[in-house]
Amino acid sequence: MTNTTQEAASAANKSNHDPAHHRSAPQPFALTILGAGSATPTLRLHPTAQLLTVGSDYMLIDCGEGTQLRLIEQKIRLGRLRYIFISHLHGDHYFGLAPLLSTLNLSGRTEDLYLFGPRGLDEVLTTIFRVSDSRLGYNLHFQAVDPALPTLLLDHPQLTVESVPLQHRIDCSGYLFREKPHKPHLLREKLPTDVPVQYLKQLKEGHDIRDENGSVLYAAAEYTVPGPPSRSYAFCSDTRYVAGLTTQLQGVDLLYHEATFLEDNAERASEVYHSTAQQAAAIAANAGVGRLLIGHFSSRYKQFEPFLNEARSLFPETYLAVEGETFVI
Amino acid sequence: MTNTTQEAASAANKSNHDPAHHRSAPQPFALTILGAGSATPTLRLHPTAQLLTVGSDYMLIDCGEGTQLRLIEQKIRLGRLRYIFISHLHGDHYFGLAPLLSTLNLSGRTEDLYLFGPRGLDEVLTTIFRVSDSRLGYNLHFQAVDPALPTLLLDHPQLTVESVPLQHRIDCSGYLFREKPHKPHLLREKLPTDVPVQYLKQLKEGHDIRDENGSVLYAAAEYTVPGPPSRSYAFCSDTRYVAGLTTQLQGVDLLYHEATFLEDNAERASEVYHSTAQQAAAIAANAGVGRLLIGHFSSRYKQFEPFLNEARSLFPETYLAVEGETFVI
Repeated sequence: MTNTTQEAASAANKSNHDPAHHRSAPQPFALTILGAGSATPTLRLHPTAQLLTVGSDYMLIDCGEGTQLRLIEQKIRLGRLRYIFISHLHGDHYFGLAPLLSTLNLSGRTEDLYLFGPRGLDEVLTTIFRVSDSRLGYNLHFQAVDPALPTLLLDHPQLTVESVPLQHRIDCSGYLFREKPHKPHLLREKLPTDVPVQYLKQLKEGHDIRDENGSVLYAAAEYTVPGPPSRSYAFCSDTRYVAGLTTQLQGVDLLYHEATFLEDNAERASEVYHSTAQQAAAIAANAGVGRLLIGHFSSRYKQFEPFLNEARSLFPETYLAVEGETFVI
Repeated sequence: MTNTTQEAASAANKSNHDPAHHRSAPQPFALTILGAGSATPTLRLHPTAQLLTVGSDYMLIDCGEGTQLRLIEQKIRLGRLRYIFISHLHGDHYFGLAPLLSTLNLSGRTEDLYLFGPRGLDEVLTTIFRVSDSRLGYNLHFQAVDPALPTLLLDHPQLTVESVPLQHRIDCSGYLFREKPHKPHLLREKLPTDVPVQYLKQLKEGHDIRDENGSVLYAAAEYTVPGPPSRSYAFCSDTRYVAGLTTQLQGVDLLYHEATFLEDNAERASEVYHSTAQQAAAIAANAGVGRLLIGHFSSRYKQFEPFLNEARSLFPETYLAVEGETFVI
């Protein structure tokens, strides 16, 4: 289930250059956990940060203090980051952002960078760069996320990203990453070698090829197989239990949902706008997701197994968001 | 020369409670290096941060990203921090500050905290706390430091702190910590046991005790020995070579002076308002300091010995600011 980010990237390169792998190995779509802790700093867990690898693009999701070091540890080339999504403005979810943006600047970046997050994030960054008399050498495109309505934020060649309204002490949004539908694969070996090239494109788009009388020469159904299913990942942190989330999250392949507390602290979880492991599992079960990842564990707990046990009692396909692990979707 | 922060604190406690140590072991005055790197993040060195232990108080000097974890690694109780000094608003010197202040708040701190730094620092912090809808549960007293004039910033029971104007790309100040003069020690064993208590205080302050005719009963010089010399520490980072610094820094016991580059990059050092190891050593030699500590090494250098060698060619009592080491002053 897990391997390293580098292996995922390497598998991706292979599928790009080796035709034999064309059908079986789609573009990588993988999540690497950089931090799974909560607000109180500890030496065991780092604050929230995740890296989503989508084809050759890196998308960073939340950016707690020290995230740039976690990326360096994972041997991620910082320059390949193109999109950053921040859930909310509690420090353990974004205090690593200004340091990361500064480092990108110092390294001479000129490529545009796209940042999504709550209103106010731009003011913080603008203030920080102003007082240090810094000018970024790259364009930083900031889009404020509406915390109340699911909104399409990004229409990327391979996927769409929409916001997921959460309920926390301050405005907070999750993010839903959905691959676009894959085109059917062409069965070239079944076609005569002299088929005109323009026919191939039409077949791949599902259109039959007909002669001038309208008779089918090559049926798309016969010469293609369906593309791989579209994959999806949803990130939900931080939030109290919101039963209604299951509508938007229906059927996602991988769901990350915060699980700050165990059931013994269910009341406190609700008070401080956080969730328990069982509540995360209830969302996963009711939304019929493929797998559930839990994290954002409170520092009051010394062991993580009880989180897994409580969640699996409701949703067996639950896994811990272990720092440094990559979940291939 | 070096030991751990805990050992320094332990030595301090011993001197407080064991009269036999009263004369030989003064209050601790020790510097712990938390970060000695420069702006580019690496896994080898952390950004600038130092902890000065003065009696039972902790003073933090600069606070690069991740400083709170360095403090936790050193087993420093964060709650004991009372004074924080920030040299300038380049991120590698203060991006760990908002995270640290947030953690202190989360842990329920109510004691006042005193922060010294460039104008603009308060605006950054105010913005960060406003957008997260946070109110600190403790008073944070901010004093903006005049970057152009040496200024007395703090009159602490045991020491004074004054600013040291440096020359960097943006406003930047060093800090000079000077112990107040120690009172003479009383030689109790030489005095008759029936000497009135009020005489002891006068003798310790250097006053002779006279009878009603003005004749000396007990001469201060006979019944006291001079207290230990006052100790001093100066922190200078980041700055280009400023020959005039030696006036203010004359005779300090320990001087930290940045040494971002080796002599092969002297021209570049000047351009980017940094110093070489030899320039740091020249300041130390001309100011007649006791020991020189160098740090803020550029990530372009893979080895630190050349820094030491170049500096020692001018000033033999030079040491590397090794992270985790404590220099007892």
